[in-house]
Amino acid sequence: MSEIFKVTILGSSAATPTSLRHTTAQLLQYHNRRYLLDCAEGTQMQLRRMKVPLMKINHIFISHLHGDHYLGLPGLLFTFHLLGRKKELHVYSPPGLEEIIRLQYEISELKPSFEVVFHELRQGEELIFDDGLLTVHTIPMQHRITTYGFLFREKEKDRNIKKSSIHQYKIPTDAIPGIKQGNDFTTKDGEIIPNGELTTSPPPLRSYAFCSDTAYTEDYIEQIRGVDLLYHEATFLQDKAAIAREKTHSTALEAATLAKKAGVKMLLLGHYSARYKDMKAFKSEARIVFQNTFLAEEGEEFYI
Amino acid sequence: MSEIFKVTILGSSAATPTSLRHTTAQLLQYHNRRYLLDCAEGTQMQLRRMKVPLMKINHIFISHLHGDHYLGLPGLLFTFHLLGRKKELHVYSPPGLEEIIRLQYEISELKPSFEVVFHELRQGEELIFDDGLLTVHTIPMQHRITTYGFLFREKEKDRNIKKSSIHQYKIPTDAIPGIKQGNDFTTKDGEIIPNGELTTSPPPLRSYAFCSDTAYTEDYIEQIRGVDLLYHEATFLQDKAAIAREKTHSTALEAATLAKKAGVKMLLLGHYSARYKDMKAFKSEARIVFQNTFLAEEGEEFYI
Repeated sequence: MSEIFKVTILGSSAATPTSLRHTTAQLLQYHNRRYLLDCAEGTQMQLRRMKVPLMKINHIFISHLHGDHYLGLPGLLFTFHLLGRKKELHVYSPPGLEEIIRLQYEISELKPSFEVVFHELRQGEELIFDDGLLTVHTIPMQHRITTYGFLFREKEKDRNIKKSSIHQYKIPTDAIPGIKQGNDFTTKDGEIIPNGELTTSPPPLRSYAFCSDTAYTEDYIEQIRGVDLLYHEATFLQDKAAIAREKTHSTALEAATLAKKAGVKMLLLGHYSARYKDMKAFKSEARIVFQNTFLAEEGEEFYI
Repeated sequence: MSEIFKVTILGSSAATPTSLRHTTAQLLQYHNRRYLLDCAEGTQMQLRRMKVPLMKINHIFISHLHGDHYLGLPGLLFTFHLLGRKKELHVYSPPGLEEIIRLQYEISELKPSFEVVFHELRQGEELIFDDGLLTVHTIPMQHRITTYGFLFREKEKDRNIKKSSIHQYKIPTDAIPGIKQGNDFTTKDGEIIPNGELTTSPPPLRSYAFCSDTAYTEDYIEQIRGVDLLYHEATFLQDKAAIAREKTHSTALEAATLAKKAGVKMLLLGHYSARYKDMKAFKSEARIVFQNTFLAEEGEEFYI
């Protein structure tokens, strides 16, 4: 059985929150690990409302340093401190965030109970994280200030060895790791048993691309090709395409166009301008081009 | 009739928000003017939920630079910018806040549509604001870092002239301002009419003292003597008095003791530690000493 791999929407509003919607933040869960993607104002309250075990979060990925994507971080760090956190926390973002946080610590005269390791992102398509189970690469966005998306991919897994084969061919324990990695097996009698007879394929590797904020661009289309789930910002509907371009944001139709061209399996829209009250139009506009489109709404979970 | 003078609770939790309670922020309304007292994370969403006209806020008073009292300010400023605000905004706080905000502007590459005038507070019992209707003085708190409470007082008002006197004594228009300020009136025949016969007293001057965060101290007791409403932090109950002292906070009983000794008319408690789930015990503890005690709870309004 595959490990749980799911994204929970904590906020889906662009730029400014509304009375109903927070600005951007998502919780990504893989197996029992939690990763935070962006951390807008109010994220810590959203995490508490959704009963997320805060201390399971050890890695926070910030796409860029516009307020609606990071202003919840100082409060979350302060809460970690109050909870007596000892474990170090890793924060990945474009340069500048460490200076902001350090200044706030200094002025508050706060000596936090744990260390924050800041990882400054300086180029796109770079491997920034590998914990043995998942890798994360940056995706270069096209936005007013330096912005990165994040591509989460499961790592290659061992093949599954069939128990029946172990009995049938009397495979010794020390041969099993090699077989799981694709080796054939030679019996005592010298018979070569091809790997395909001994093992079954692991489940296909899953992937999640988080693309916020960006104008429409096909620059990174090869990087996200075929992902299981693409989150792509859709700040506007197509009738505001000119405004979207001017503000380096995208429309629902543009997000869907990219999803289609990149052959992704499923598209998730979000980062809706506060001017819109009802998001149904985003889904219907995108579905003209790409049927398997869904809406990021607070509290919703999407399995990858 | 007196102008509206009321405080609305936007947040009442100490240090860290819970799933139900935001950290400190209050909206003070006087006539049609709005003042924000502290601005914790999520304040802008609370203001939107309570349908407060954001652009009516021109003055923000920050007691101190612990995160749970100011981390909502950057997001609120960004929202003002998105709404196209032109009018300057005045922010009063201990030194350091301007540096925090400017750094965030710089890193976000934000050129806000309006100017923020930062007023650095450097001593207690200082007059920091006077708009002709209200004055604000700082109250020196006793806390780990430099912290000020704020004392809002209605200004002395003119006496009300009786319409019947104007007719009876044929008082000319140009004499009216002087009479409203307490002058007697001399008729054409040389008769002196004492002011008390011509006017009635204005309503008594109302006052609100906002005291967050502080250990128990009687240092400013004369400054808050007899205020109509005293908001005083009560982070703990009395069984945690030692912890309160160590953390330079107060208990409900201590707040009530101060309210009694200062002869205030009404006490409002808030800034409850997140460890408490039910606040009733704060009220009952305080009422042992000071009967007219109420609890700051989100969305509640208190008329002054």
